[in-house]
Amino acid sequence: MSILPMPALEVAAGAVSGVPSAWTVPLFIPSLPAFDVYQQRLQQVSASGTFTNFGPMLRAFEMALAEGLGVSPTRVVGVSSATAGLTCALLAVAERGGHCIMPAWTHSATPSAARRAGLEPWFLDVDLETWQLDPTDVEERISLSEAARVAAVVLVSPFGARIDVPEWEAFADRTGVPVLVDAAAGFDTWQDSRLTSVVSFHATKGFGIGEGGAVLAPDDSTGLRIRMATSLGMDSNRVAVVDGMNAKLDEFRSAIGLAALDTWQDVRAAILERSRAYFVALHRSGLSFRRPYGLEDVANSTYPIALSGPHAVDMIEALAQRGVHARRWWGDGCHRVPVFVSCPCEGVPVTDALAARVIGLPLYATVPLAAIEYVVSCLEEIGREYEHR
Amino acid sequence: MSILPMPALEVAAGAVSGVPSAWTVPLFIPSLPAFDVYQQRLQQVSASGTFTNFGPMLRAFEMALAEGLGVSPTRVVGVSSATAGLTCALLAVAERGGHCIMPAWTHSATPSAARRAGLEPWFLDVDLETWQLDPTDVEERISLSEAARVAAVVLVSPFGARIDVPEWEAFADRTGVPVLVDAAAGFDTWQDSRLTSVVSFHATKGFGIGEGGAVLAPDDSTGLRIRMATSLGMDSNRVAVVDGMNAKLDEFRSAIGLAALDTWQDVRAAILERSRAYFVALHRSGLSFRRPYGLEDVANSTYPIALSGPHAVDMIEALAQRGVHARRWWGDGCHRVPVFVSCPCEGVPVTDALAARVIGLPLYATVPLAAIEYVVSCLEEIGREYEHR
Repeated sequence: MSILPMPALEVAAGAVSGVPSAWTVPLFIPSLPAFDVYQQRLQQVSASGTFTNFGPMLRAFEMALAEGLGVSPTRVVGVSSATAGLTCALLAVAERGGHCIMPAWTHSATPSAARRAGLEPWFLDVDLETWQLDPTDVEERISLSEAARVAAVVLVSPFGARIDVPEWEAFADRTGVPVLVDAAAGFDTWQDSRLTSVVSFHATKGFGIGEGGAVLAPDDSTGLRIRMATSLGMDSNRVAVVDGMNAKLDEFRSAIGLAALDTWQDVRAAILERSRAYFVALHRSGLSFRRPYGLEDVANSTYPIALSGPHAVDMIEALAQRGVHARRWWGDGCHRVPVFVSCPCEGVPVTDALAARVIGLPLYATVPLAAIEYVVSCLEEIGREYEHR
Repeated sequence: MSILPMPALEVAAGAVSGVPSAWTVPLFIPSLPAFDVYQQRLQQVSASGTFTNFGPMLRAFEMALAEGLGVSPTRVVGVSSATAGLTCALLAVAERGGHCIMPAWTHSATPSAARRAGLEPWFLDVDLETWQLDPTDVEERISLSEAARVAAVVLVSPFGARIDVPEWEAFADRTGVPVLVDAAAGFDTWQDSRLTSVVSFHATKGFGIGEGGAVLAPDDSTGLRIRMATSLGMDSNRVAVVDGMNAKLDEFRSAIGLAALDTWQDVRAAILERSRAYFVALHRSGLSFRRPYGLEDVANSTYPIALSGPHAVDMIEALAQRGVHARRWWGDGCHRVPVFVSCPCEGVPVTDALAARVIGLPLYATVPLAAIEYVVSCLEEIGREYEHR
């Protein structure tokens, strides 16, 4: 997706008395800290002569993240992107070959990451309440399938929603299948567990540095194996002892990461205030909608919502006519993405239903509260027009 | 490898009259431009609000690279690392599955990149003069092998040495097998051809930005396919139509790349002067040595040399005792790397011989000329000691 340098809000000519007649509300404006927050750290990197390969700035960033999570720093591995981090994590915990179970309701990054780890995605459906895989369903599918060898299960935290950690830890214990969490949008809900989880620091996330991410390993030895996987699988003697790739996070981006941690609480508070504004405006409206369970207090980078009325494609078109940029975040679902149609998938009706209804509304630290009121009023207007067709 | 922030040269206490009694010569000091060369561009990135996803700074960097090569900018794709770039190039030009022929005499990055593209490395030997694959030998191996399906050949430009482009273009035409060039160290010899080539901008390269690289595609349509592969295989509608990963180069690193282009000619001249100093000192010495053909006028980031006398491991140890840091750049060869020992390889005697003899001596823009004299005098001393054992 392209992040165009657009102004946060433009009031159309002719607007009067504080209530503009038309807005332009971009889909997203990144919340990276201002240059002066990280300038000194970048200068420090430059002066140090160390630019990558597990340098001091990366170590400091990983330690700060580990402190926030209350875990050993060995378990936190900074990576060049969440997608690369998920591949490294799969290389470290899953056997080569076989299938990687994941929801069809996710971004193409999830199945891509599995393919790069030598695994073939197997798309299952999600639960209508949680928008996530259901452990009982997954276990049943595994036991019913005779042909498939399941190397891993990758859960997806939809738009940063919490996953049921104890349920999935128990699943992993019962089945012996490694369970990982693609928590790309889940920086705000990232937590310690016995699962391996990956978060993204992409510019389009609430906590962004440009390109980057981090993996939280369940223990130190897995953390060390994942760290090796990010550096071509090489041990401290530069000998490749495990499969890997180059997924190292360089010193410049680590420096920006440290700065982003300094400003995160302010960014988070601003996002949460805007998320609540959507909540209030939507409940005040007559709109009928559905949201994934447990997303109300999560600071993420879009406000996903399943609306009754027009198909998501038409809804987005109607919003665009009103200057509001929304997006079908995960398109038609991964099972319908050309490069993944060959992957096993035995029907995913909930994913199909969500794909037809869910749109991501603009949510970021700088979107004006009045713009949110405007977005919801547009939804109401579009809903009324749809009813009276 | 760890790039420690070491001083370029330390004169031991007790040194007198301009000729130090002992030196410390680090293996490598990066040649990234000083902070003030790129500060303004980084500030520009910050102010633009565009941090990645094919932003203007990346486009400007790609255009500058394309101008230098005299090719269409569509053919140049900035990537997060050369290894990731090679994977993307293989995803774009080679069929999934099958074998990827490559020299055993290379860095683990080459076979890693192939594995991430779903290909199994097949290690062949190199020629003693060029340290590269020989097209006649490769063609013979392919025709003799009945079991293997060869999806691609990846040549390696050893330490930046030129490859025989017309020979390999003819090979590709005759065999129909895609030929790619891992030219990680070959920024200085990068040139237009009908092969797909990948260079590295890693901090340990002559032209460095930290982590990064670029791919030069043989034509615009391959360039577009590789570009999609770097962005999860997505087309302009965000639909994954080809296999991919996240290998995008962000705006910050693209900005540093533009700055590095500004300073490259000076860095290059300094490296070449030092390369010539090695050449003169070595020829003046009584040392018997071998270098890959055509490397004398290439600005790269180490001075590789095969020396008679002690095994490379002992040579490096003896140099270290004298404060000179050298390295066996590619260890024992990829066929002996634990994670690749299972790959097909029918004996590679030249690689074995090179692995036992080749060491990389310190070569970078800031290594003092006198240090080079010192390094060569150490080699002479070690050679004499070896003869009189």
